[in-house]
Amino acid sequence: MASLIAPENPSPVADAEAIRKAVQGWGTDEKAIISIMGHRNAVQRKLIRQAYEETYQEDLIKRLESELSGHFEKAVFRWVLDPADRDAVLANVAMKQSKVDYHVIVELSCIYSPEELLAVKRAYQARFKRSMEEDLASHTSGDLGKFLVALVGIYRYDGDEIDPRLAKSEANVLHNAIKEKIFNHEEVIRIVSTRSKAQLMATYNRYKDEYDTTITKHLVDDPADQYLAAVRTAIRCVNDPKKYYEKVIRNALNKPGTDEDALTRVIVTRAEKDLKEIKELYYKRNSVSLDHAVAKETSGDYEAFLLTLLGKED
Amino acid sequence: MASLIAPENPSPVADAEAIRKAVQGWGTDEKAIISIMGHRNAVQRKLIRQAYEETYQEDLIKRLESELSGHFEKAVFRWVLDPADRDAVLANVAMKQSKVDYHVIVELSCIYSPEELLAVKRAYQARFKRSMEEDLASHTSGDLGKFLVALVGIYRYDGDEIDPRLAKSEANVLHNAIKEKIFNHEEVIRIVSTRSKAQLMATYNRYKDEYDTTITKHLVDDPADQYLAAVRTAIRCVNDPKKYYEKVIRNALNKPGTDEDALTRVIVTRAEKDLKEIKELYYKRNSVSLDHAVAKETSGDYEAFLLTLLGKED
Repeated sequence: MASLIAPENPSPVADAEAIRKAVQGWGTDEKAIISIMGHRNAVQRKLIRQAYEETYQEDLIKRLESELSGHFEKAVFRWVLDPADRDAVLANVAMKQSKVDYHVIVELSCIYSPEELLAVKRAYQARFKRSMEEDLASHTSGDLGKFLVALVGIYRYDGDEIDPRLAKSEANVLHNAIKEKIFNHEEVIRIVSTRSKAQLMATYNRYKDEYDTTITKHLVDDPADQYLAAVRTAIRCVNDPKKYYEKVIRNALNKPGTDEDALTRVIVTRAEKDLKEIKELYYKRNSVSLDHAVAKETSGDYEAFLLTLLGKED
Repeated sequence: MASLIAPENPSPVADAEAIRKAVQGWGTDEKAIISIMGHRNAVQRKLIRQAYEETYQEDLIKRLESELSGHFEKAVFRWVLDPADRDAVLANVAMKQSKVDYHVIVELSCIYSPEELLAVKRAYQARFKRSMEEDLASHTSGDLGKFLVALVGIYRYDGDEIDPRLAKSEANVLHNAIKEKIFNHEEVIRIVSTRSKAQLMATYNRYKDEYDTTITKHLVDDPADQYLAAVRTAIRCVNDPKKYYEKVIRNALNKPGTDEDALTRVIVTRAEKDLKEIKELYYKRNSVSLDHAVAKETSGDYEAFLLTLLGKED
């Protein structure tokens, strides 16, 4: 369930006017921006953008970028964009880093539905005039690159059907590769990147039944190996997305200095989906509410905005 | 342009009735089936299938399969199916052969538009309850498998934009790999499988300008190497699909015993698209009309059906 609290039918024109007031003249009224945008779902935000553009002949996103700054600006930018467009931006930023942030790519392939991933690919092409696949392929290399390109290049089957014999045989294939420490075996990449999520869950469960440990525990060799870390992430994302996101948030908050990019990404991409359950998991795991933890590690408008998306009542 | 000759608004109900008459009782009236189905476009054929099913509570495709036989049955089956569904069947048949028929896969990736390929992937999943990618990946191996999975797993950018600097640098990358005889270089697979068609044409032209020969001429080593043959095919399909199809038909007709599968595939998949131009190319290249050549190498209902799709007036 969503953590976002949004009224049913707010007026896009009134919202656009209020935002115009907040960004005009000396200074910016960040609180007003948060109190509106922090309580609107994707469709409502889109209508506000359109109303703003029609009324003031100005791109709202560009205006907000020029008015805001820092982590707050980044978070608002990611929130105000269409979800598929935002995810295209996140993917582009992730692959352009000196060390590719595989999390974003793995999430798109292993948590998003095939149709959602396709929408992100279309948005990517509309924005960057190139395919996500070609950019990813030319920005990555080695085993990690091979794995990520395979992950993202697949239009997965989304059905519930499971082939138990295939689950058994592929659990065995994975185990043999792991036993011989050929972690980058073609078959490992093939199975993890092409099989449907339902089939993969069956395979991973079978693996656990046969070999007494989860496959992720076996897929550890060199802790610095980014490829192996990405494979483990892909398995976790398929097995339990909410648990995975809880861990991303926990790591982001526990990191010295806080990993704001990861924190923003999870809150912004999940606020309309399952952030409520992720919050519950966080509380169970850490005995402190996510709101408290976020409030402790962030500050100012950025803090206020995240807390709003987390469902804090004004 | 299409070679198919179809009336503007035939009655699906009357067509279904006529086909019912042709398949009922002793024997089958193949001529009647050809004279109707051989003159209907994809939408019209779909309406006939629906009208037939509604009126007779029977699947027309199954009925035709039980009434017809040999190459004629195969051709009618491929023609009567929805195009995307037919292409899914063709891909499935191609990858299940002991030696994968890479032509079908390469055509889907390098001639079909990204949206058309996507439609085939959707049809494949609806029919086989698995993704095309996972089946392809588990039926192929080695360099050829790697290349085909990459080709099919990409949602290519379809725009016309070209980056001339990139064309120059990637022509160079390709040339270096070829010069050192590392034909299966990761970069070769990456470039050929991920770049947009417009960009690839620019790269291949640049290659020709810089190194005085077409890249396909340089991509020859062991003639039995299926991977290299597939790469050359991918390049030809991007550069000039009609010329490529002319060659497929020529090879199919010249082969001792005729390659009916290839012949049927090109005629059935292109009759509503560009078979008229392919025919003209064939005539220019071979100084004999394609109708004549097909009539010479085929016979009976199969011959009559192909000639009808080729636009022969009744």
